[in-house]
Amino acid sequence: MNKIARKNAFYAQSGGVSAVINASACGVIETALRHSRHIGKIYAGRDGIVGALTEDLIDVGRESPAVIRGLRHTPGGAFGSARFKLKSIEQNRAEYERLIEVFRAHDIGYFFYNGGNDSMDTAHKVSQIGESLGYPIICVGVPKTVDNDLPHTDCCPGFGSVAKYIAISTREAAMDVASMARTSTKVFVFEVMGRHAGWIAAAAGLAGRRPGEPPHIILFPEIPFDPERFLERVKQCVTDYGYCVVAVSEGAAYADGRFLAEAGTKDAFGHTQLGGVAPVVADMVRQRHGYKYHWAVADYLQRSARHIASKVDVEQAYAVGKAAVDLALKGHNAVMPTIVRKSSRPYKWTIGHVPLGEVANREKKVPREYITPDGFAITEACRRYLEPLVAGEAYPPYRNGLPDYVHIKGVRVRRKLTKEFKIQ
Amino acid sequence: MNKIARKNAFYAQSGGVSAVINASACGVIETALRHSRHIGKIYAGRDGIVGALTEDLIDVGRESPAVIRGLRHTPGGAFGSARFKLKSIEQNRAEYERLIEVFRAHDIGYFFYNGGNDSMDTAHKVSQIGESLGYPIICVGVPKTVDNDLPHTDCCPGFGSVAKYIAISTREAAMDVASMARTSTKVFVFEVMGRHAGWIAAAAGLAGRRPGEPPHIILFPEIPFDPERFLERVKQCVTDYGYCVVAVSEGAAYADGRFLAEAGTKDAFGHTQLGGVAPVVADMVRQRHGYKYHWAVADYLQRSARHIASKVDVEQAYAVGKAAVDLALKGHNAVMPTIVRKSSRPYKWTIGHVPLGEVANREKKVPREYITPDGFAITEACRRYLEPLVAGEAYPPYRNGLPDYVHIKGVRVRRKLTKEFKIQ
Repeated sequence: MNKIARKNAFYAQSGGVSAVINASACGVIETALRHSRHIGKIYAGRDGIVGALTEDLIDVGRESPAVIRGLRHTPGGAFGSARFKLKSIEQNRAEYERLIEVFRAHDIGYFFYNGGNDSMDTAHKVSQIGESLGYPIICVGVPKTVDNDLPHTDCCPGFGSVAKYIAISTREAAMDVASMARTSTKVFVFEVMGRHAGWIAAAAGLAGRRPGEPPHIILFPEIPFDPERFLERVKQCVTDYGYCVVAVSEGAAYADGRFLAEAGTKDAFGHTQLGGVAPVVADMVRQRHGYKYHWAVADYLQRSARHIASKVDVEQAYAVGKAAVDLALKGHNAVMPTIVRKSSRPYKWTIGHVPLGEVANREKKVPREYITPDGFAITEACRRYLEPLVAGEAYPPYRNGLPDYVHIKGVRVRRKLTKEFKIQ
Repeated sequence: MNKIARKNAFYAQSGGVSAVINASACGVIETALRHSRHIGKIYAGRDGIVGALTEDLIDVGRESPAVIRGLRHTPGGAFGSARFKLKSIEQNRAEYERLIEVFRAHDIGYFFYNGGNDSMDTAHKVSQIGESLGYPIICVGVPKTVDNDLPHTDCCPGFGSVAKYIAISTREAAMDVASMARTSTKVFVFEVMGRHAGWIAAAAGLAGRRPGEPPHIILFPEIPFDPERFLERVKQCVTDYGYCVVAVSEGAAYADGRFLAEAGTKDAFGHTQLGGVAPVVADMVRQRHGYKYHWAVADYLQRSARHIASKVDVEQAYAVGKAAVDLALKGHNAVMPTIVRKSSRPYKWTIGHVPLGEVANREKKVPREYITPDGFAITEACRRYLEPLVAGEAYPPYRNGLPDYVHIKGVRVRRKLTKEFKIQ
C-alpha cells in the first residue's frame, strides 16, 4: 500500500435512508481513521452528492469519537442524504466536471458512495470521468437499500432491519386482531414498502410458522393481483380462522401493471384521491364482504426503526463500510463490497466484491420459488433465506425512556472554489 | 381473611387490547394461585364477557406456569377480548341474570374485569345485581386503556407502552425525514390513536427536547382544528427547519365537532371515501403548499408493540392485577385499584383504589395546561407527567429473530347449564 499517495476521502449518503446506513458510515470513517498514512482528511457531503456539487462539505474530523461510534446505533442519514440522480454524461457533463473540480480542490482521492442501484451507477461514472479528465479517483460503492434489490450481493444492508420490524409488527398486530375478532375487527391490512420488489412483503411471512398462523395473505408486486381470488381467500380465512391478516406491498399491481394504490387514487372525474394501497385493499374487502376492518401504513417508521434493528444487519452494514475502505486501499476501483452467504443454518457470511458496472441499474426481485404456488405466502426456501437476516437484537442505548441517538456537529469545510454551482 | 368462603374466580379481558393487558392477567392469576385457601379454580372468559354469557370458560389451571409467566411479555388479549357492552339493567336484565346464573353454576365468587370505562360500569352493575339476586359476588375492576382516560388513577396500564412506541417512532421517522428534506419529503404526518383524549398524541411530544426539534406540530382532539393556523405553521416550519413533522390524533376535530377524518371520507356526492386522518391532513398541506409529503398510520401496531413496551407500564399492569386480587381477598367489593403518583422526579408510585361507581363512564382529557398556548405542543408540566411512564425497557425473549410470545391452550371448562344464551 506504500505506493498509494496520501489523499483525502469523501463519503456521501444517497437515496432513501435506513436504520443502519449510519452504521456503514461508521465503518467507513473508523476504518479510514485507522489508515491515516494513506487517508488524510475525511469529508462528508451535506445532503449527499448535493453537498459535493455545491461544495458543502462536512469535516468529519471535527466530530467526537463518541459521535462517530454512536452512528452505529443511530437511524436516518446523519450527514443528510439526497434523492438526486446525476444525469447521463451526455445530458449533463457539467455536473460530473463540477464533481471532479470539487474533488480536485479538496485533494480528494477516494469517493465512497453509500446507496442503491442509481448511486452505484453514479459512482461508476464518476470513476470513468475522473480518469478522462486527468484526475483519477478511486470510487467504491457501499451498498444500502431497504428494498434488498441489488444484484450480486446476497442481501443489502438496511433490509434485515426493515424485515425484522415488519415481521415483528405483523406478529404483534395479528395477536391484537386475533383477540378481538369475535366481536370486532375481522380483517387487518398492513401496507409495507417495496415498490418493485416484494422482499419486505415476504418478511411479513416470518411472523407465522404453522398453517393458519398470520399473515394469511401476502400481496407481492411480483404476483399480478387478482381481486376475485384475493376476496375469496379473505372470506375463507375469516371462516376458518375467525380473522384475516393481509400484508400488502406498496408495489402490488394488476396484471396490466397498474398499481393498486394508483387505481384507488382517482375518482370518476380523474381527480386525485388520497392514497396508500392499504385503504384501497381494505375498502375492497368491506365492499364485498362487509367485514369490519383496520389498516396500517408504517411508511418511514419501518425503515427508521433502529430501536429493533437486526443485529446481523447492523454488523453487515458496518462491515461493508469497512470493506469499502479496505478495498480502496488495496487499489480496487469502481467496485462494491458484497455480502456472500456461505451457509444458512448455521448462518455464515463473508465479504466479497463486484465491479460497479455489474450492479448499476439492475434489480433483484423475489424469485418465484420463494413464493407459494397460490401466490399468497412464502416458501420454506424463502424462510431459510430470510431468517438469518433478522437474527439478533442490537438495542441502542436509552435515556429518559427514549433511544439516545447522536447528532453530528456538521462543521463545514472552508470553500476553495469561488464559482457557485446551481443544482438543476 | 379466614371468614371468606373458598370460591372460584373469573377473569375477563374487555375492549381494545394492549401490549400489557396480559401482564395484568399474569398479576391476577399468579396472585390468585398463591391464595388457594380462598380462591379455588381460576376461570377466564373466552373472548371476554361473551365467554361468561355463553358459558365458554377457560380453565386457567390447565395452563403451564411457563405460559402464565409468559403472559407478562405477550401482547394482545391471550384469552380473547370483546367489544361488548352490557346494556342497562332496564334494557336487558336477561344478560345480567345470565351472568349470575353462570357464576352460580361454577361457584364463582370473584369477578375480575380488565378494561376501560365501560367495563368498570359493567363490573359495578354486576356487583349490584348479584346482591339483588341473592348471589353476592365480589367485583373488582382491573384498569386497562391505551387512551389513558380513566379518572382517579394517575395513569392507565397500556398507555405507557403506547406512549413509548409513539415517542420513539416519531423520533426515528423524523430523523429519516430530516436527512432527506433537502431534495425529497418535506412534511411527514403521523396519525396516532386516541379518539376523545389526546394523551397518545401528547406522547409524540416527548420525541423532541429543544426548540425546533420534531414533532413541530401536534394536533390534539382537545384543541379545535383551525386549518389556516395549521397551514401557516407548517409553512413556517419548512422555512425555518427545512421540514415539518406533524403528529395528529385520530380524534382531531373542527370547532363544530366534525372529525377531520370524517370530513375527508365523503366525496361531493356523499359517497364514502377511504379514511384515516393522516392522508386528509397530508392532502391539505399538498393542496395549499405543494410540499412533497409522506404519512403513516400505526393503527394496531402502536397498541400491540410489546417489543418496545415501557418497563414502568409492564410493572404497573402487573401490579394492578395483583392488587385486584389482594383487594378482593380483603373484602373490598366494587372497587378498582389505581396508580397513585407520589413524585415525578424521581418517579415514585404506589397502588390505591377507588369505588367503581366513581370511575364508570367518565373520561379524563389532556388538561389545557399540558398544551402550549398555541395549541401545537406539550408543556414542561406535560413532559414531567409523561416521562416517567415511558421509562425503562422490558424486552421480551427472542427466538429466530422474533419475540417468543406465548399462546394459551385454552382448555374449556365443562358446561353445567343446558340452556344456550344468544348474544344480542
